[in-house]
Amino acid sequence: MEQSQALKLVKPHLTEGRYRHTVGVMETAMILAERFGEDSKKAETAAIFHDYAKYRNKDEMRDLVKNKLSRKDILDYGSELLHAPCGAYYVEHEIGITDQNVLNAITYHTTGRPEMSGLEKIIFLADYIEPNRTFPGVDEVRELATRNMDEAIILMLQQTIAFLVKRRQLLYPLTLETFNESIRKQRGEN
Amino acid sequence: MEQSQALKLVKPHLTEGRYRHTVGVMETAMILAERFGEDSKKAETAAIFHDYAKYRNKDEMRDLVKNKLSRKDILDYGSELLHAPCGAYYVEHEIGITDQNVLNAITYHTTGRPEMSGLEKIIFLADYIEPNRTFPGVDEVRELATRNMDEAIILMLQQTIAFLVKRRQLLYPLTLETFNESIRKQRGEN
Repeated sequence: MEQSQALKLVKPHLTEGRYRHTVGVMETAMILAERFGEDSKKAETAAIFHDYAKYRNKDEMRDLVKNKLSRKDILDYGSELLHAPCGAYYVEHEIGITDQNVLNAITYHTTGRPEMSGLEKIIFLADYIEPNRTFPGVDEVRELATRNMDEAIILMLQQTIAFLVKRRQLLYPLTLETFNESIRKQRGEN
Repeated sequence: MEQSQALKLVKPHLTEGRYRHTVGVMETAMILAERFGEDSKKAETAAIFHDYAKYRNKDEMRDLVKNKLSRKDILDYGSELLHAPCGAYYVEHEIGITDQNVLNAITYHTTGRPEMSGLEKIIFLADYIEPNRTFPGVDEVRELATRNMDEAIILMLQQTIAFLVKRRQLLYPLTLETFNESIRKQRGEN
């Protein structure tokens, strides 16, 4: 699908700010794909649609998770996690995207998961460091992302876990598993 | 068992500093038990023996976990976790302590677990705040422990998770589950 057509399809589902963020993720994901030898067309598509379900009705998404999706445990961790796996489902069934790597990159863009593909890592990271993000620590992650995607993801996970725990927010176990696996890999244990 | 007899039994298994720590945990645990209406004799016993296996041979403990204990996943999280569940086993089989609440308090004193008993909470907390502990943040946890054990444990878990993640240490999933459950309880969701 052409970039302009894909952006046109996603735009009605997003606020203005979220659309700007989506374009930022798209541009960042394409740069990362170039840099780390991944498919930049798939990175573009996954990025454009990664927040497709961001403003979808929460009850509708909860029903979808209960009835059609495999990861029912996300229901116990607040509504913010719903839009990623539900988005992948809607993008498949409403837009007709069938590439499993693209759909997984959308599914896991909020939580991560152990053994992410290169494309999954790119969307996970691009969502965090795209140019509109301004939180403390983002520049350090951006800097690492210029040369080492796995190190950038470890720092991103360190920041995310610290942020959530400090604010007494629930932390989804898969995100901890992603962190633990990244640390083991970096130590050469995996 | 008399306090003096129990201390005599544990002393040969500990260094001098670890013995001082053990006495600190014992005194703290007994104060907490008084304060929060738990059995202060059980708190004394669990505290005295909580680090019984601290200096035990690691290979022996790994074999014990593999062959006799249920939580084999601790083997993937570094050797520091071994001494708690192995300690409970040795204390049962070598000292003859059979009280399951005391043994659980020893088993979970390093990681915590969701749905801890009052005694388990006391040992988990006393190990962290006993008077010989001097790390940053310990006084805030001590202060909370004068009036609200669950709040003290949440702060302790926040500090522990932040400490481990900042140092790129593996975090045992059960500790995250303990944190998530504590947060849900405090929000009134459980």
